[in-house]
Amino acid sequence: MPKVALEALCASKEAFLATLAPIYEKSPWVAERAYASAPFASVTALAAAMRDVVAAATDAEVVALLRAHPDLAGRAALAGELTAESTVEQQRAGLGSLTPGELAEFRRLNAAYREAFGWPFILAVRNASKRAVLGAFARRVGATAAGERAECVAQVHKIAWMRLLDAVAHTPAGFLTCHVLDTARGCPAAGMAVSLRRVGDHGDLPAEYAFVTNADGRLDGPALKGDAFAAGAYEWTFRVGEYFAAAGVPVAATPFLGDVPIRFGIDNPEEHYHVPLLCSPWTFSTYRGS
Amino acid sequence: MPKVALEALCASKEAFLATLAPIYEKSPWVAERAYASAPFASVTALAAAMRDVVAAATDAEVVALLRAHPDLAGRAALAGELTAESTVEQQRAGLGSLTPGELAEFRRLNAAYREAFGWPFILAVRNASKRAVLGAFARRVGATAAGERAECVAQVHKIAWMRLLDAVAHTPAGFLTCHVLDTARGCPAAGMAVSLRRVGDHGDLPAEYAFVTNADGRLDGPALKGDAFAAGAYEWTFRVGEYFAAAGVPVAATPFLGDVPIRFGIDNPEEHYHVPLLCSPWTFSTYRGS
Amino acid sequence: MPKVALEALCASKEAFLATLAPIYEKSPWVAERAYASAPFASVTALAAAMRDVVAAATDAEVVALLRAHPDLAGRAALAGELTAESTVEQQRAGLGSLTPGELAEFRRLNAAYREAFGWPFILAVRNASKRAVLGAFARRVGATAAGERAECVAQVHKIAWMRLLDAVAHTPAGFLTCHVLDTARGCPAAGMAVSLRRVGDHGDLPAEYAFVTNADGRLDGPALKGDAFAAGAYEWTFRVGEYFAAAGVPVAATPFLGDVPIRFGIDNPEEHYHVPLLCSPWTFSTYRGS
Amino acid sequence: MPKVALEALCASKEAFLATLAPIYEKSPWVAERAYASAPFASVTALAAAMRDVVAAATDAEVVALLRAHPDLAGRAALAGELTAESTVEQQRAGLGSLTPGELAEFRRLNAAYREAFGWPFILAVRNASKRAVLGAFARRVGATAAGERAECVAQVHKIAWMRLLDAVAHTPAGFLTCHVLDTARGCPAAGMAVSLRRVGDHGDLPAEYAFVTNADGRLDGPALKGDAFAAGAYEWTFRVGEYFAAAGVPVAATPFLGDVPIRFGIDNPEEHYHVPLLCSPWTFSTYRGS
Repeated sequence: MPKVALEALCASKEAFLATLAPIYEKSPWVAERAYASAPFASVTALAAAMRDVVAAATDAEVVALLRAHPDLAGRAALAGELTAESTVEQQRAGLGSLTPGELAEFRRLNAAYREAFGWPFILAVRNASKRAVLGAFARRVGATAAGERAECVAQVHKIAWMRLLDAVAHTPAGFLTCHVLDTARGCPAAGMAVSLRRVGDHGDLPAEYAFVTNADGRLDGPALKGDAFAAGAYEWTFRVGEYFAAAGVPVAATPFLGDVPIRFGIDNPEEHYHVPLLCSPWTFSTYRGS
Repeated sequence: MPKVALEALCASKEAFLATLAPIYEKSPWVAERAYASAPFASVTALAAAMRDVVAAATDAEVVALLRAHPDLAGRAALAGELTAESTVEQQRAGLGSLTPGELAEFRRLNAAYREAFGWPFILAVRNASKRAVLGAFARRVGATAAGERAECVAQVHKIAWMRLLDAVAHTPAGFLTCHVLDTARGCPAAGMAVSLRRVGDHGDLPAEYAFVTNADGRLDGPALKGDAFAAGAYEWTFRVGEYFAAAGVPVAATPFLGDVPIRFGIDNPEEHYHVPLLCSPWTFSTYRGS
Repeated sequence: MPKVALEALCASKEAFLATLAPIYEKSPWVAERAYASAPFASVTALAAAMRDVVAAATDAEVVALLRAHPDLAGRAALAGELTAESTVEQQRAGLGSLTPGELAEFRRLNAAYREAFGWPFILAVRNASKRAVLGAFARRVGATAAGERAECVAQVHKIAWMRLLDAVAHTPAGFLTCHVLDTARGCPAAGMAVSLRRVGDHGDLPAEYAFVTNADGRLDGPALKGDAFAAGAYEWTFRVGEYFAAAGVPVAATPFLGDVPIRFGIDNPEEHYHVPLLCSPWTFSTYRGS
Repeated sequence: MPKVALEALCASKEAFLATLAPIYEKSPWVAERAYASAPFASVTALAAAMRDVVAAATDAEVVALLRAHPDLAGRAALAGELTAESTVEQQRAGLGSLTPGELAEFRRLNAAYREAFGWPFILAVRNASKRAVLGAFARRVGATAAGERAECVAQVHKIAWMRLLDAVAHTPAGFLTCHVLDTARGCPAAGMAVSLRRVGDHGDLPAEYAFVTNADGRLDGPALKGDAFAAGAYEWTFRVGEYFAAAGVPVAATPFLGDVPIRFGIDNPEEHYHVPLLCSPWTFSTYRGS
């Protein structure tokens, strides 16, 4: 489904609701009230407005919002009665192919959780494995009611965010940068070959990009920006072994660090992501920088 | 070619030389003199004895050893006249498929280097890319004679080490361990799924191993040891995103760190390699530990 | 005041209450109910039992516990009517010497907070600066009621923990270890001089200890243990510049890293603290290990 | 002694030599030949020109330069016959107050070293401890002649660099910056209090500076620049515990990280030093950035 432009969306309440009513599960009132703050300068701003609507809602409305969500691997899922969005989300987490034992475990946990809290267990599962889902479930079924309510609202917002990014074209504010520092010699790592590839399904965007670091250890300009900078998983590969061998820093015959992959996720393509590498021949680290 | 056991090798000088004479390029005297120190408790000890032979050799012998090496991508390589060992090594670095421009560059550098130092440019290339070779070549052709001699001897020892590991079965002293620390919460990362796979050609050894960290964030016992712990490249994959999501530490809808690969090389399978992970949802690092 | 031994404390309910009734501010019922679980093998176990009592208390009891706490820099503090414990705690954070402007700010925040939540703002202030207190106050006065209640209970438990450690002798289970890794060369940093000193007031314990790392980069045995291992702040000093200079790893005339201090806090002297150093001449890191 | 301005120095060969002849120990020819490249835009450029002179000198001249240096703690030192520069340098390393046993050890090592190499052991000792000097001595007395010659020339250049910085005013090109990242939450650490102090003797420069990080986790402008940015040791103190407590990130009653000191050396005040902090409540790291 092609993404809608933010401007087109804000042009009329009808267009707005046509696209955004399903963002919060079976709760069109969230989109409806958020429209009062239109237009929005970014998907980030739109998402914030929708979260504000939920924060300002009554207790009963929030609980109704939580209750509107389906059980994970629950009756509705088995009967094929989920919303289109929920169906895709649960399948991506492998919840469509559970063993009988796992199904029984989900049934037991779903029942215990509903009994304890009065609403279904909610988890943004699209990027979660079966193992992660069961781990979170086991922990959360024993949490406090106040804690779980806050946790479920946070999960609902995560689900909404991923649905928003699927439905609405992001603005070109975000970009990806890199910086490589040589911590064996205390200087920028100049002339290091770096490549970037997308991990998983990214449609028809190019699969791989190649760079070489400049004298300051940086790439000349953003590695990705605009439309090409989509949410999802990416992987740098840094030619660390090659770099140190060429520089004459002693490395082993089979270097401890040769090609170093760094896999990372982009959650908000309207933000700047700085993902650097600090490396010697014997250690490396990365972090979300700024 | 099946590897020879160290004991069989040391049983007679004939057996020793049959296998080890080619370890130092066209210089059987290294193996011959090293035999005086037989038997050897490990490939590591054998390699050290051979390095000691070179260290004790005369200047003329060392220069002859350097001169016994072929040019990289040189006349002998093009004519198919390399030793079996050198042929494989140069091909693995992609030197068998150079463009005419690259060939001309190698020819120019080889000539300039020989002119400057009186022996060929020597680089342990099996794990090096064409790019790394040219980078090192360009830097080293301008180095001092004393520096280059020391560098070439170091490269000759690296080449010998890789040939030794191909020819002789290593002792089972080495092993691989892991430790995962959660630096968001200051505790061992317990219950994290970890897998280990070999990268590249490892013959008929199993391809992948799966683990879960224990209460101390460690694996129960070595991940690899004995024959299964061969020299080469490996990759851990740590389920960091899953771990933090299950633990309730806030992560994004698309987590910055999901599955974290850590690729590393084992140079000496007779040593202990400790390759840990320190991670929060926003940073990670690794290093060769002990 | 000399600390009481855990055994003596558990010997009679009278002794228990004489020491522990004031641990939770004006709420002797916590100690009273915790006594049902006596004896305790450690201060850690005793503290856990007291936290369990609070977790099992009624809503009204918990709110009464929160309300039993004084305002920070409030009327009682100015009038000298705090409990002995609270007086010391507020003074250590510099709340005894506020400027008129700061006092006015505290008065405003105290009033706003009580108005919003119905109990006083609670913060374990003994190790907090005036700046930290005002920062936390400004943020928390706008938080949700559920969040603040959880936060205040957490702070109450921190206050109780520090009072417990002042009153009861800890068991000798805890100890401090170190490990230094040379990430420039990928090996343990052997032969590095390391010293350890206490920061702040530690009574009559020795002020400084000197060590040298062994071949594995570790100290021979714990740096501190038993009675000498008290809660509080400590500082390692690692002679990193000296180590690399002696090893022949190039460093500048004025090394980037010379003597490297690492300051850290021990919160629970009944636990193992592993505080290692990873260093090259150009970077270092530390973490709470295990 | 007031420092001379670079311009005044380059105005006449006489002025140049008056100040720079003693920079290379008893070897005024280095300054003399370097003057051919005057004027110099920076002390860095002047130092490079002097190093180039040494690199272009004959073998005999270089060996004479090495031989012009005094033994460490040697006869000349005991007799008070060192150059003014050497006297200060040896005293700062504590070589003026050796025990009889240490003196004997130095005498033994000096003799063995001269015997092996034909010139005295040379080490830039101003920032080295007695322990570092002895450690380097013990290792280097067994090194190769080619290695030691290169090492001694490197040490001679370090000594010259420190003498140059004492004698000549540096240009205002260098500056010091900082950046603090919160790796618990994956964002810049905004609003963290940071101070900077000089360690050791810095004459009449201010002793301490106070800052607060801005929204990007940086200081507004350089922490030091121009004349105030002198070579020597410095120490940041980051209020990490206070920052996380105010932010509501859980920390212990006695936080593992409270005030975090980071001590570092500035070797070249004409360069940019970026000395950042990456921190969670349980780990931190720093490095020389760019």
